[in-house]
Amino acid sequence: MQQAGVNVVALGIFSWDRIQPAEDEWNFDWLDRIIAMLGRADISVDLTSATASAPLWLYEKYPQMLPRDKFGHAINAGARQSWSASSPICREYALELCRRLAERYGGNPTVTAWHVGNEYGWNNRHDYSDEALRAFRAWCEHKYGSVEKLNEAWCSSFWSQEVRSFQEVLMPRHMGADAMVNPAQQLDFERFSNDALLDCYRAERDAIAAICPDKPITTSFMISTDQCAIDYAQWGAEVDFVSNDHYFHEGESPLDELLCSDSLVSSIAHRQPWYLMEHSTSSVQWKPVNARKCHGELLRDALAHVAMGADAINFFQWRQSRGGAEALHSAMLPHADADTRLFRQVCETGEALKGLSEVAGTTVVPSRVGILFDVQSQWSTEIPTLPTTKLDHWHEVRDWYRSFLAAGLRADVVAHEWEQYDLLVLPTLFMLSDSAVRRLERYVHGGGAIVVGYATGIVNDAFQVGLGGYPGAGDGLLRTMLGVSGEEFNILGPDETAQSVELSDGSISRLWQTCLTRIADDAEMLATYTEAGALEWELSGMPAIVAHQYGSGRTWYIGCDVRREYATRLICDQLAPQIGIELGDPRVVTIDHASDVHVFHCVFNRSGTDVELSPSDDPVLLARGSRGQGAVTLPRQRSLDYAKLALNLG
Amino acid sequence: MQQAGVNVVALGIFSWDRIQPAEDEWNFDWLDRIIAMLGRADISVDLTSATASAPLWLYEKYPQMLPRDKFGHAINAGARQSWSASSPICREYALELCRRLAERYGGNPTVTAWHVGNEYGWNNRHDYSDEALRAFRAWCEHKYGSVEKLNEAWCSSFWSQEVRSFQEVLMPRHMGADAMVNPAQQLDFERFSNDALLDCYRAERDAIAAICPDKPITTSFMISTDQCAIDYAQWGAEVDFVSNDHYFHEGESPLDELLCSDSLVSSIAHRQPWYLMEHSTSSVQWKPVNARKCHGELLRDALAHVAMGADAINFFQWRQSRGGAEALHSAMLPHADADTRLFRQVCETGEALKGLSEVAGTTVVPSRVGILFDVQSQWSTEIPTLPTTKLDHWHEVRDWYRSFLAAGLRADVVAHEWEQYDLLVLPTLFMLSDSAVRRLERYVHGGGAIVVGYATGIVNDAFQVGLGGYPGAGDGLLRTMLGVSGEEFNILGPDETAQSVELSDGSISRLWQTCLTRIADDAEMLATYTEAGALEWELSGMPAIVAHQYGSGRTWYIGCDVRREYATRLICDQLAPQIGIELGDPRVVTIDHASDVHVFHCVFNRSGTDVELSPSDDPVLLARGSRGQGAVTLPRQRSLDYAKLALNLG
Amino acid sequence: MQQAGVNVVALGIFSWDRIQPAEDEWNFDWLDRIIAMLGRADISVDLTSATASAPLWLYEKYPQMLPRDKFGHAINAGARQSWSASSPICREYALELCRRLAERYGGNPTVTAWHVGNEYGWNNRHDYSDEALRAFRAWCEHKYGSVEKLNEAWCSSFWSQEVRSFQEVLMPRHMGADAMVNPAQQLDFERFSNDALLDCYRAERDAIAAICPDKPITTSFMISTDQCAIDYAQWGAEVDFVSNDHYFHEGESPLDELLCSDSLVSSIAHRQPWYLMEHSTSSVQWKPVNARKCHGELLRDALAHVAMGADAINFFQWRQSRGGAEALHSAMLPHADADTRLFRQVCETGEALKGLSEVAGTTVVPSRVGILFDVQSQWSTEIPTLPTTKLDHWHEVRDWYRSFLAAGLRADVVAHEWEQYDLLVLPTLFMLSDSAVRRLERYVHGGGAIVVGYATGIVNDAFQVGLGGYPGAGDGLLRTMLGVSGEEFNILGPDETAQSVELSDGSISRLWQTCLTRIADDAEMLATYTEAGALEWELSGMPAIVAHQYGSGRTWYIGCDVRREYATRLICDQLAPQIGIELGDPRVVTIDHASDVHVFHCVFNRSGTDVELSPSDDPVLLARGSRGQGAVTLPRQRSLDYAKLALNLG
Repeated sequence: MQQAGVNVVALGIFSWDRIQPAEDEWNFDWLDRIIAMLGRADISVDLTSATASAPLWLYEKYPQMLPRDKFGHAINAGARQSWSASSPICREYALELCRRLAERYGGNPTVTAWHVGNEYGWNNRHDYSDEALRAFRAWCEHKYGSVEKLNEAWCSSFWSQEVRSFQEVLMPRHMGADAMVNPAQQLDFERFSNDALLDCYRAERDAIAAICPDKPITTSFMISTDQCAIDYAQWGAEVDFVSNDHYFHEGESPLDELLCSDSLVSSIAHRQPWYLMEHSTSSVQWKPVNARKCHGELLRDALAHVAMGADAINFFQWRQSRGGAEALHSAMLPHADADTRLFRQVCETGEALKGLSEVAGTTVVPSRVGILFDVQSQWSTEIPTLPTTKLDHWHEVRDWYRSFLAAGLRADVVAHEWEQYDLLVLPTLFMLSDSAVRRLERYVHGGGAIVVGYATGIVNDAFQVGLGGYPGAGDGLLRTMLGVSGEEFNILGPDETAQSVELSDGSISRLWQTCLTRIADDAEMLATYTEAGALEWELSGMPAIVAHQYGSGRTWYIGCDVRREYATRLICDQLAPQIGIELGDPRVVTIDHASDVHVFHCVFNRSGTDVELSPSDDPVLLARGSRGQGAVTLPRQRSLDYAKLALNLG
Repeated sequence: MQQAGVNVVALGIFSWDRIQPAEDEWNFDWLDRIIAMLGRADISVDLTSATASAPLWLYEKYPQMLPRDKFGHAINAGARQSWSASSPICREYALELCRRLAERYGGNPTVTAWHVGNEYGWNNRHDYSDEALRAFRAWCEHKYGSVEKLNEAWCSSFWSQEVRSFQEVLMPRHMGADAMVNPAQQLDFERFSNDALLDCYRAERDAIAAICPDKPITTSFMISTDQCAIDYAQWGAEVDFVSNDHYFHEGESPLDELLCSDSLVSSIAHRQPWYLMEHSTSSVQWKPVNARKCHGELLRDALAHVAMGADAINFFQWRQSRGGAEALHSAMLPHADADTRLFRQVCETGEALKGLSEVAGTTVVPSRVGILFDVQSQWSTEIPTLPTTKLDHWHEVRDWYRSFLAAGLRADVVAHEWEQYDLLVLPTLFMLSDSAVRRLERYVHGGGAIVVGYATGIVNDAFQVGLGGYPGAGDGLLRTMLGVSGEEFNILGPDETAQSVELSDGSISRLWQTCLTRIADDAEMLATYTEAGALEWELSGMPAIVAHQYGSGRTWYIGCDVRREYATRLICDQLAPQIGIELGDPRVVTIDHASDVHVFHCVFNRSGTDVELSPSDDPVLLARGSRGQGAVTLPRQRSLDYAKLALNLG
Repeated sequence: MQQAGVNVVALGIFSWDRIQPAEDEWNFDWLDRIIAMLGRADISVDLTSATASAPLWLYEKYPQMLPRDKFGHAINAGARQSWSASSPICREYALELCRRLAERYGGNPTVTAWHVGNEYGWNNRHDYSDEALRAFRAWCEHKYGSVEKLNEAWCSSFWSQEVRSFQEVLMPRHMGADAMVNPAQQLDFERFSNDALLDCYRAERDAIAAICPDKPITTSFMISTDQCAIDYAQWGAEVDFVSNDHYFHEGESPLDELLCSDSLVSSIAHRQPWYLMEHSTSSVQWKPVNARKCHGELLRDALAHVAMGADAINFFQWRQSRGGAEALHSAMLPHADADTRLFRQVCETGEALKGLSEVAGTTVVPSRVGILFDVQSQWSTEIPTLPTTKLDHWHEVRDWYRSFLAAGLRADVVAHEWEQYDLLVLPTLFMLSDSAVRRLERYVHGGGAIVVGYATGIVNDAFQVGLGGYPGAGDGLLRTMLGVSGEEFNILGPDETAQSVELSDGSISRLWQTCLTRIADDAEMLATYTEAGALEWELSGMPAIVAHQYGSGRTWYIGCDVRREYATRLICDQLAPQIGIELGDPRVVTIDHASDVHVFHCVFNRSGTDVELSPSDDPVLLARGSRGQGAVTLPRQRSLDYAKLALNLG
């Protein structure tokens, strides 16, 4: 471990059964020994509450603590998190465990932080058990106070769904193959499920903090390419520092996706340093096919996380397991042991990270452009009774993020506190509450610029459609800001019909076109629908992209899905000039770090070819790049040497 | 509503919970008020029995009334029809509700008809609960009288399935992933399930009629493009007038499909006027992607339903809901309110319908060609242990319907009473009872002409294969009529083999070829199998299409699936000449209406281009068409103006 | 039957309900009559224990004997084998039935053999019921003796899965959508499930043998193209003669696949004659689409089974049923009766088989090449947490078998006793125990040649990964033999990345490349990775195919998946010369039979064209081939005449 530069270890995540092998038996000896050994090696411990997987004897004794899926099937023990977040008995045992750990290790100097639970919701995100039903009814009662308010919010007079007491409130259990769930009920169930898990975390955290008040406490989030299902913006306020588990995405743009995920993590951490609790040295084993990392992606990814604000870089796992469900998951020390390409890269990474000590204490310099992510809209776009089931808010965020990179700009993904940005993008924010619209209005009126994507602002926070024309959010206020009003959504996709609609500026839409029938007199029509697809769908000449001056600010309404290339063009032609930001070099991405006295430029090559740079200042750290006469060459992404971390005195 | 020309409203379909908010509480005030208001506006009410969705308190009190799917999962409350048709307790509460409504509104002049339940079977078509098992056993005992008869009908000696008492009879619950159900058992379960729903309807209807005997009673059927799973030919006899809910199908031929569905509805209504209880002004929200109507399809569809025999045109729904599972479903009054293209089209439609008052009292002039649809064959083609799982009787009906349209002819889809037709098509009527074959024999012998499609007449009504050669229906009588006998079915489809077989007349078969090894001496071989595919499958020279004189009539046997283009050619070359019917203009479809004194011609453009017609008589009504010197132009389908309803004095 | 040459009938397989129509009622009369009738016609009876499907009254009385799937759904009665192998009550009733049958028919001379059960595991291969859980816990206790040993074997400290008593051991029931099962637990569950079925068979067999000790007993296996899920190598030791049910596979190579399956059956029968208990005269009815046999495939398949060692050829079924789940399954006597092409072919087959009486008593001459099949590796490649889910050991065996055929050679598929072969192929034997590696080492050291395919030897029999480099089986011994060591697996397949990697000899890999980082000094590198794919995946120049001398023997390591064409080239260029075997004619396959005095050559045309042969000896039997001057012509496969069975005096 020392050879690899390891200086922190997360310990005990799935060890409940080792610590408490039977109801009245506690075994800390093995843990004492490991902690002592790590302490002697100057490796600090991020000690877990060990509550992620309960021991088998507990499940056997209390089968009612197993979660149930929507069909009523038990989620049986044998994997991870096979416990219901709403189970009082499970809670009781978990808190006892937390207290015992805190009592024993709270004062141990090797233990520098607490890692409560692990990836909450990985296997118990939704629970339809009777325990959960009781908790959901209580949650609804707490939220609404009276059944009248719940019935109103849920529009439950539809389909005979009015409740007369909270004891009649139902979860969206299986209702038949073609049955449609009430979206407001579904959304509240998502919120309840999130809150139930958060309650677990809070209870465990508080049990530890009551005994050991002086050490920071965290838990690991799961924000990565295809995953952001928990309201982490809310959870972020409950941890002493944010931790995230990130697993890379095969395909054309692993670096872009890493940056985008990290940007959201950084927002949730309020732009403070955060902790990369897990990533992999190479392949995982839980996908149908599992690509490995090559061409130094191991080092590249670790440095990129640092560049994006991580101040600790952890890998899952130290030694590749011989058995169990993750035996074929990569590790720092592979099955083939230390004399391997992989372990040498791990050591190289450890070295490189040590060389970055100067960066410690700096923070990432924020962008002037924000892209809004709101998990409520993510949940909303997963509702099955929308005009199309192909919406995905989080993927739209990522596409916009990549469109900015392709313009040589790095945007920030933001989950809250966006007023400081000069330009704000709202990509398929299907749900916008009235207050969110009023907040946006103040922002634009005061000079802010917003880009509103298609399918944004359709429903309020009770999933009720805004009336009077689309987008109806904020009782029409959003329409007024944008200078547009639409009547219907034109949805492409069924077989045997035109599969795309062309825009007058050459762009293409394949999914969704808002049928705008009015635009304000002072609005500017940047593109209309045209050609055969528009004729087929009766959209010819209808406005597609509209810009509008509102107060001291400006708005753009993108009435349809557009491809990334088009968004990049809009950024270059309209958005960047509007806020007076200079376009960068799209071949690289640059992340700046600053402290009171320093600015560091971190530059990564995201192109397919070598890039030669003439840095204005002399780079002090160069990872795998090469340095000629004055110039620095960053080889192509996925070639043997590709990354450069350039640090300058500010 | 008056602006839109609304004169009838279906009311209260899902309002049980409003009317009876608790077991001992009844609340009619709100309903009184709405009915009074509508009455004052001269809008009549089609009042429902409100039984489609039970209130949550009732499900909570009697969870045994929830249906179960074949795995045993409860179909939970929260959507619609979450009740078992076999539940005595649910029946009791439903009838009490019916009686209360009948007592209160039976004499109300605004209430002009009763709408019992709604779309029976939408979510409870199959129920595998213990309640249903009891009812199924009783149903079998009633049908068969003795276990010996059931065992014989079900061939249950196979696989040790003989029952010794009706208490041993099983439903086809889940039997394992690869398990195969006894088709006779499956068919009886389909029939039982249909009958159980019909019993519900009858009981509710009778409860109302006992108190309010003078008003017509109906319930809404669900006949549309991909759906015809209930034995509506049987249900048709139980309603005072037929009602149907029709939702359009995206794709290349929404008009063709609408006409075909309506034709079946018309047959079930015994060619009497029927009621379009629901259709949509534009998109729905329950498909994965939901296309909207454009180019005046709203008006076109409404007029087409009238042309096909509907004398009432209802839309679901009046005002687009803000919330609930159908918030994104289109309505007469959209979210964007009255000043919209959609609402203007609704009003235009109202106007157009008013202009059709002359048509009232006429009936559609029947075709001379019938296409048989039998739900028993539909259920049969859904059995998974057939030579291929790609059979679909209802889709074959539709393909033949479209083939006739492409020949400029309009056929009638018929569910009973077909003796009056000159030509009858039997498209994949997999199941033919002995008596049906004898009836066909009398028809052909007396001069009728029949076209028998592939996979027709393979099993009898107990799903027992007819012996002695295919098709074996009627103990060989069908073979004698057709002059053919086959030994095997050649099925295409597995990978890596020839995917089609060519016929000597240039047609192509891709799915099924009956291996005919004998044809009668006096039969005429119209096409044989040939070329590489035939060689590969040992079919070279084998007869594919055979015509035969039988008695005074004539038969055609189509031994394989053929494409619509080929069927149209057969219609033009053989079938139309046989019955002396003149081919029409394939660019339009014409539906004639007649009363004692009038004939009206309704003409719709089904082509992709404008059509100029020189009508023999002067049209008195023209919707969206344009009229030049003598000629009338019908613009292309899906263009801004495309439909013409031409009415002539007969 | 006599016309068709039938001389043996398997009787009563699903007749439990007929024999025991109620708990206290036994009815043997019908069976007495049929056996007597068959006896008079000189047809012998293979009498079943009739236990494959229990009667409905038994399921009704003891619902706990229904198996459960992993979700807990009951596998309901109505199909076959709806009983739990772990149900004591079911066992009790089944044994009573066996005893009654043995007592009544044990001495009947017409009954010449016993057929116990039928296709064990067809519908109850896995059972997750509580009965099964009890049995699984006992099985684990018996296997491991102590929980410590189980925990060690299962690596169960991972994810808190340690058990403290065998009462805590779990089956891999449903654990959530994304949950990953412990592979060691899964493997043991596969083994337990196999053993539970074998226990059923043994108990029934012993009950019969106790009463009727002198007649041979068998049960039918299910080895065919896509199916080999039971440990039949183990079962083979428990039957007096091996029986198999084989159903042909549509596609390009039904003959190749038949030969491969039969070769495994033959190995399980220790190269003694075996019994083809079921195959079909033509199509089945249980696939989504069911192709028929044509071009004499009926005769060709029957003769091919004989050639591969079958000494009895049975068809399912005699008369095509009118009803039930298999009504559309082909039979000897079809729905269209005796005057049919199919029945004539059945009779022709009967004649041909009679003509083969000389072959009786001979055995198939083994090949000098063996291809190893091990069901433990088959189960292992079905584990979902491997580097890729696309592995399939049995399909790799088949591909190698076909590669040899394409070199004009016939290999033997072997399940045990492979030391006698000169060359042994190990295709994706993912699991190799330490003792298996030591056995291989002795074999190679002593002069044997082995070909080790990719993904071979990764885990031991507890599914623990071998350490120190891949393949790690045998604690490094396998690596030493092969002269290679790898660090990672490069897996292709995710979208948007290179989908193949080229080898320096022109071959292509699409799935898996072992990243070999070391090869022994004396190893010979036959091919490396090259071109764009290798560059993309950082594999350029890495060894792909390596040959190595070890002791007196030689090894080939194939580090990646290769296409059949490449394997054939390797066979021709390297493997055949190594063992000094002459390549044959790839257009035909030849199977030799020998007795003490005779050798018979059975030759089948497997090509797409006619083949003219000049046999060295005079053929004495010719089925459908034609014979000119000295030469014999075998027409192309799937033409009207294609098969030749040539017999020579040795």
